[in-house]
Amino acid sequence: MSRAIAVIGGTGPAGTGLALRWARAGETIIIGSRDAARAGQTAEAIRRRAGTNAQISGMENSAACAATDLLMLTVPFEGQAALLKQLKPTIRPGSVLIDATVPLAASVGGRASRTIGVWQGSAAQQTAELVPKGVSVVAAFHNVSADILNGDDDVDCDVIVCSDDPNATQVAMELAVKIPRVRAIDGGKLENARIVEQLTALLIGLNIRHKGHGGIRITGLPEAAYKIGSDR
Amino acid sequence: MSRAIAVIGGTGPAGTGLALRWARAGETIIIGSRDAARAGQTAEAIRRRAGTNAQISGMENSAACAATDLLMLTVPFEGQAALLKQLKPTIRPGSVLIDATVPLAASVGGRASRTIGVWQGSAAQQTAELVPKGVSVVAAFHNVSADILNGDDDVDCDVIVCSDDPNATQVAMELAVKIPRVRAIDGGKLENARIVEQLTALLIGLNIRHKGHGGIRITGLPEAAYKIGSDR
Repeated sequence: MSRAIAVIGGTGPAGTGLALRWARAGETIIIGSRDAARAGQTAEAIRRRAGTNAQISGMENSAACAATDLLMLTVPFEGQAALLKQLKPTIRPGSVLIDATVPLAASVGGRASRTIGVWQGSAAQQTAELVPKGVSVVAAFHNVSADILNGDDDVDCDVIVCSDDPNATQVAMELAVKIPRVRAIDGGKLENARIVEQLTALLIGLNIRHKGHGGIRITGLPEAAYKIGSDR
Repeated sequence: MSRAIAVIGGTGPAGTGLALRWARAGETIIIGSRDAARAGQTAEAIRRRAGTNAQISGMENSAACAATDLLMLTVPFEGQAALLKQLKPTIRPGSVLIDATVPLAASVGGRASRTIGVWQGSAAQQTAELVPKGVSVVAAFHNVSADILNGDDDVDCDVIVCSDDPNATQVAMELAVKIPRVRAIDGGKLENARIVEQLTALLIGLNIRHKGHGGIRITGLPEAAYKIGSDR
């Protein structure tokens, strides 16, 4: 990417994991957090793991939004809507916002292996309703284990990317294949995010039941359906 | 299995595909259909492909139910509830009923890449409400491509099995691994079927978009989580 990636809510496990992998791939990363100091500490911790040449800094979430036009949203569902309302004035027109939010029932005190219903159909569609006009929302990265992302192993998972904007889909697919062994698949319209989000709850249930770090692979599609990284 | 498998709605593509694979594995199969003559024709067609030693016959659906205590339900969602109400008196107490129904929006004139909401949470939970007391419902085989099942290639797909009865889960898992290369995974309670069912709509969308026969593999679980066939 020629532009920096702001990971909003970037101090949580999913955010730090994605930031680590993208920093290792040479991307410029801005960790966003409610607390600028905490964002800076997380950025430093990631730099120590990604190497001294890693281009990574930390900012308060709105400053991170204002600093680039490529946003990766990794916040728990219970914080998603309020945060987006707060950030709305700072999100640049024309931005691509990648949303990995999963409406887990844990958000309202329930189980992480269950979901709650979102009026718009999915967390990503809720996001699409809350961002300024002209911002493209992409749903992706729900099913990649945060624990695996934060480690050093290759990631045995496909990333299904859903968006109503084909250009935004391409951006997210390019970012996905910067993670070693990840394949990206165009999952069609943003509305399909509802199934990809649910799948995370199923994987969490499997992880609890079988003590693993579940991911998914889609089989049976022609080769052209899978985008793979340049290292493959 | 020591007992025959009645494939209810067994003249459709999913039913014939499963019957073909199980007949090849030496199982005794009863094809069930509204029309006994049609069931018989389908059974003969499967026998021609599975080999003359295949143990397969055809019966009207209620006769098929009455003939065994292992039922595989492969009907379109729009026919599911009415058929179960009709079959209820003929389903034997203690039966295991495996449900592969997916509540596709196509059932009500919509798209096969979308689903409709089922009050009980999933088609399988609707089934559980409609069968006689003491019948164990298992949800499984939703994500296996009917086209692939009806062919000769190995099946590159995991079967996630959900049930509130661990014994019924075992029965379905054993049947799953009789299909070459299929792995079976215990997906926990029957309520989790709602996600496994949705996944089929996602796969159908991917098949349309990418012209394939999509399936899924779950990665990242410990070896013990995967049941595999004896030929592996």
